[in-house]
Amino acid sequence: MDSRQIVGRNVRRIREEMGLSQEQLAFETELHRTYISGVERGVRNPTVLVIDRLAKALGVPPHLLLMQGSI
Amino acid sequence: MDSRQIVGRNVRRIREEMGLSQEQLAFETELHRTYISGVERGVRNPTVLVIDRLAKALGVPPHLLLMQGSI
Repeated sequence: MDSRQIVGRNVRRIREEMGLSQEQLAFETELHRTYISGVERGVRNPTVLVIDRLAKALGVPPHLLLMQGSI
Repeated sequence: MDSRQIVGRNVRRIREEMGLSQEQLAFETELHRTYISGVERGVRNPTVLVIDRLAKALGVPPHLLLMQGSI
């Protein structure tokens, strides 16, 4: 499993824990909902600046999104 | 400071601690030396798959490259 899948799992888990929909996360990050869906499915290859935007919207430090089995 | 600068500082510090040149890291990662130089200066915006390649060559977990003030 590479970082695309790890980021995807972490984004989905944290988003759901926060009770956010993909649409709401898309709005917060100014990314398209289909892009969010692709990130969560591990098929997108986000840059570190996108990681920063996702982390900010989810309220976690960016590095945490690349941690395997993080919160 | 966003993740581009954090990754840059971490890559440079770890590379130098390992006694690797930019050329050697470029060879290990199959990335161009000028790209490595740009990452280290914080002006490139690497994807998570590039982070994986850099982390593997530097022998650290990918998330560590995005940690502020990491080793």
